[in-house]
Amino acid sequence: MDLRDALRAFAKARDWDDRYHTPKNLVMALSAEVGELTDLFQWLTPEEAQNAMQDPELAWNVRDELADVMHYLTRLADKLGVDLVEASFAKIERNEQRFPTGDLRPVPVEKGEM
Amino acid sequence: MDLRDALRAFAKARDWDDRYHTPKNLVMALSAEVGELTDLFQWLTPEEAQNAMQDPELAWNVRDELADVMHYLTRLADKLGVDLVEASFAKIERNEQRFPTGDLRPVPVEKGEM
Amino acid sequence: MDLRDALRAFAKARDWDDRYHTPKNLVMALSAEVGELTDLFQWLTPEEAQNAMQDPELAWNVRDELADVMHYLTRLADKLGVDLVEASFAKIERNEQRFPTGDLRPVPVEKGEM
Amino acid sequence: MDLRDALRAFAKARDWDDRYHTPKNLVMALSAEVGELTDLFQWLTPEEAQNAMQDPELAWNVRDELADVMHYLTRLADKLGVDLVEASFAKIERNEQRFPTGDLRPVPVEKGEM
Repeated sequence: MDLRDALRAFAKARDWDDRYHTPKNLVMALSAEVGELTDLFQWLTPEEAQNAMQDPELAWNVRDELADVMHYLTRLADKLGVDLVEASFAKIERNEQRFPTGDLRPVPVEKGEM
Repeated sequence: MDLRDALRAFAKARDWDDRYHTPKNLVMALSAEVGELTDLFQWLTPEEAQNAMQDPELAWNVRDELADVMHYLTRLADKLGVDLVEASFAKIERNEQRFPTGDLRPVPVEKGEM
Repeated sequence: MDLRDALRAFAKARDWDDRYHTPKNLVMALSAEVGELTDLFQWLTPEEAQNAMQDPELAWNVRDELADVMHYLTRLADKLGVDLVEASFAKIERNEQRFPTGDLRPVPVEKGEM
Repeated sequence: MDLRDALRAFAKARDWDDRYHTPKNLVMALSAEVGELTDLFQWLTPEEAQNAMQDPELAWNVRDELADVMHYLTRLADKLGVDLVEASFAKIERNEQRFPTGDLRPVPVEKGEM
């Protein structure tokens, strides 16, 4: 079973699919989970953040929060009928146009954007 | 090529991987993109949000923002060495324990949590 | 003592001002606290959210999280040398131009924006 | 007129107060605006972020986004009947207990928290 179907089954088995998993609620849940992920990194120096996964407790929490974000993102896309992987590759193609390699112009405001 | 590798190649080809895609920056970028997704839904009624994908322009924007969120989530997990799908299934198993089906207790504070 | 000065003194007394309260860290902390506020509202129906303050425990948590958001917003503005109230009134003036009252055009995409 | 009243009048004059400014919508709007603020800082180095206000265009955008965040935070507190300044000072008092000065224990996980 893929992740989308596993999460859909999980929600349906608990009667959450219709009651709680509306698009607005899922956007909020996604946002709250990104907040929890942010909380793990906010006071770290750039170097500490780079080495975050060497601290077993922090690494466990990072994995846990990344999973939560992935869950709500997957659920939201599912409820909206969007294929996340397809949409992601389509966006990469658009970004190839927006940010050609070998571009010699100064780094744009949108530097680092994907 | 899978999404993780495609995004990694995209970043490396533009010299963004080392310069911009640090863990803290990617957490912020993820958070900013979730903000753009939130912006699309914030003033919609629950019903309008439910039908968001029937409006072609809104649907296009929703797909675009979901892709952006997926990109930064994938990049962040990649930089931290976390397998997103594996972490997601591991979390589902933990959630099966936390929220057993057939539970007759009153709906907990954490209702709707995954 | 006003709020800005009280928070500045609080941070300095704990040696947090220079060590942790950098602009990027404070933006992340602000974002994480908005995530905690979002968490309180995400599964509520619109009606439940409207009556949130009638539930003493929820009301206490809402007040607590609003304060946290206000703290980091105030600290961030302070570190950047921005007068929050002055900037807020200046933005109201710009919004008066962007969204004239008595405008008979259809509600714009940016409806509800301030 | 204070900021809360100015924003309330602005929303009422446009019929936004009842139609759009519900608690859930305002939480989402607050979150989206923090996302726009995050967007301004995400790719900056810590040093660039520290000097953000020396770049006139960036400084203008930072002021603009800080104002937007302040607007929605003020509106949300107003709709919920919370006095932001009072709640903020009450939280400082609680934080004085949680994080005593002169504490010689190792820096806690919650370091930098207010």
